Amino acid sequence: MSEPAFDLAAVRLVAFDVDGVLTDGRLYLDDQGRELHAFHVRDGMGMALARRDGLLLVALSGRDSPGVRARLQELRVSEIHLGVIDKAQVLSELAQRLQIPLAQTCFVGDDVNDLAALAIAGRSYAPADAHPRVRAVVHSVTRAAGGHGVLREILDAIYQARKAAAASASSRQS
Amino acid sequence: MSEPAFDLAAVRLVAFDVDGVLTDGRLYLDDQGRELHAFHVRDGMGMALARRDGLLLVALSGRDSPGVRARLQELRVSEIHLGVIDKAQVLSELAQRLQIPLAQTCFVGDDVNDLAALAIAGRSYAPADAHPRVRAVVHSVTRAAGGHGVLREILDAIYQARKAAAASASSRQS
Amino acid sequence: MSEPAFDLAAVRLVAFDVDGVLTDGRLYLDDQGRELHAFHVRDGMGMALARRDGLLLVALSGRDSPGVRARLQELRVSEIHLGVIDKAQVLSELAQRLQIPLAQTCFVGDDVNDLAALAIAGRSYAPADAHPRVRAVVHSVTRAAGGHGVLREILDAIYQARKAAAASASSRQS
Amino acid sequence: MSEPAFDLAAVRLVAFDVDGVLTDGRLYLDDQGRELHAFHVRDGMGMALARRDGLLLVALSGRDSPGVRARLQELRVSEIHLGVIDKAQVLSELAQRLQIPLAQTCFVGDDVNDLAALAIAGRSYAPADAHPRVRAVVHSVTRAAGGHGVLREILDAIYQARKAAAASASSRQS
Repeated sequence: MSEPAFDLAAVRLVAFDVDGVLTDGRLYLDDQGRELHAFHVRDGMGMALARRDGLLLVALSGRDSPGVRARLQELRVSEIHLGVIDKAQVLSELAQRLQIPLAQTCFVGDDVNDLAALAIAGRSYAPADAHPRVRAVVHSVTRAAGGHGVLREILDAIYQARKAAAASASSRQS
Repeated sequence: MSEPAFDLAAVRLVAFDVDGVLTDGRLYLDDQGRELHAFHVRDGMGMALARRDGLLLVALSGRDSPGVRARLQELRVSEIHLGVIDKAQVLSELAQRLQIPLAQTCFVGDDVNDLAALAIAGRSYAPADAHPRVRAVVHSVTRAAGGHGVLREILDAIYQARKAAAASASSRQS
Repeated sequence: MSEPAFDLAAVRLVAFDVDGVLTDGRLYLDDQGRELHAFHVRDGMGMALARRDGLLLVALSGRDSPGVRARLQELRVSEIHLGVIDKAQVLSELAQRLQIPLAQTCFVGDDVNDLAALAIAGRSYAPADAHPRVRAVVHSVTRAAGGHGVLREILDAIYQARKAAAASASSRQS
Repeated sequence: MSEPAFDLAAVRLVAFDVDGVLTDGRLYLDDQGRELHAFHVRDGMGMALARRDGLLLVALSGRDSPGVRARLQELRVSEIHLGVIDKAQVLSELAQRLQIPLAQTCFVGDDVNDLAALAIAGRSYAPADAHPRVRAVVHSVTRAAGGHGVLREILDAIYQARKAAAASASSRQS
């Protein structure tokens, strides 16, 4: 991920799609039509660390399923929006309600229904294996493919940027 | 996928095998002999967009399972034929019933029981990891392996061809 | 798979380990300790074709689980031996009982508990991702990794050898 | 795995994280929030052989789930510690209780919550796909990725070292 002149350290909210981002896009269906989703444990660790640092985590998925909701709740994701038709609108209203400028938000998506939300976020990300139309327009494509630590990679980058900014601020003070 | 002189824009029906095409060919079996199948969310998105554009989607599988049927119904696949012995016959009868020339159909298959149907469709496709005998005879092998967006790749190509044809037609009119 | 001077066309029995050969070696365990195993649909197709050609298929696994047994029965595997301690002994007794010379058997295994059986079979195979000690001693390593069509690759090779032998015999007669 | 001057043959205890080490880090969640974990059969074989050779196996996981516990019990892991907050403390107390010097222990971990335990073990290992911060500090990174035989690779190395040491000792005696 090359990071041009955007202030990652100022990001306060990270919103993300679920299928294809937190998972590798596979929906495991059993004979009763019940779904399984495969999350990655290192995304969970990154989300726990980010929450501790005061970052707001927001799930915005077009699909809805009890297993996804359960995992997001276990990870204590701040805002869980499943079955969303217009992700850009939800992201926009949410930013306004929380009084966070869109310039201080990130959005992570993998398919064409994420394009509008990716366009309004301060910083847009796509997994390495996202749809070509999405990869073509985002600010950064992660090294990780969907379900293999995409969110962790972004949260680590924000953490590093915050640490660098804090170090720089404290060296200016002394 | 190299596309020689075939009019993809004229395709009206896309028929496809399920195991090894919509899935990566794995059958997950539990202690009770129940099956899980792993579908890809981006195939689902492509199917929703294609349906909106009036394309007929047809599932033709040699196997039958309730989980597969549930997923295909959720995706509102126009025709769902599971447990099919002779796929070429079903495809042929279906094209006749719907009054669609076989030249305006596609078939996507991954194994030797798909060979006859692949031979009569206007355009034949195989996933990147299909059986060698299938890859040797189809018009196109997709970049995607089974279960990783094979159908999406084909539906995107049809969409692009339709858009190009429409643009060309409208520029001729003006 | 390079095939030196061994008469594949004469093979009458193909015995194989299950975990790591028919599957990729993963045991999916749920909260109740129940297991899932991921089989590949193209192995199943190959087994159906081989059975039609009169080849005996024998499963020899050190582990035992109801899901594995169900899948092997669905595939109508001739002999299903699960929970086997000494695979070489079972293979040897079976060949004797069926009056098939060991020289006309194949064995496919992926780990050190397969070494003795691999040593007595007429032809020994290991998946591309088998344990190094196994890959070092078998006659052939398949291109496919475990769970991705290992058995199909072997059965296809036997089918080709039989077809070539039949063609050669019929050309000698004319 | 390059092995510098550390006496692997003297190792008496191998402790390891579960998610991301014995598994590839994926948590499969169903609609009821139940978890599936994918273990590898060849890790199980290695653990059985190591136990026979008198090696102590210790699981130290930050998470806890019944499926993981069931698999570890099936593999007869000597000590099973799940839901552990401070892995270094548990490893340290355990070594003291069993009167094994930390220099004769290994620890295998994949994420930042393993760093302290990795720092005190005699020999530290990370899977090929571990978090970059972990890979940067361990003694060895395994060729295998998490869930694909990481522990087997380490146990095989210990076995080889013990065999070499025994051969060397017996040649000195003769």
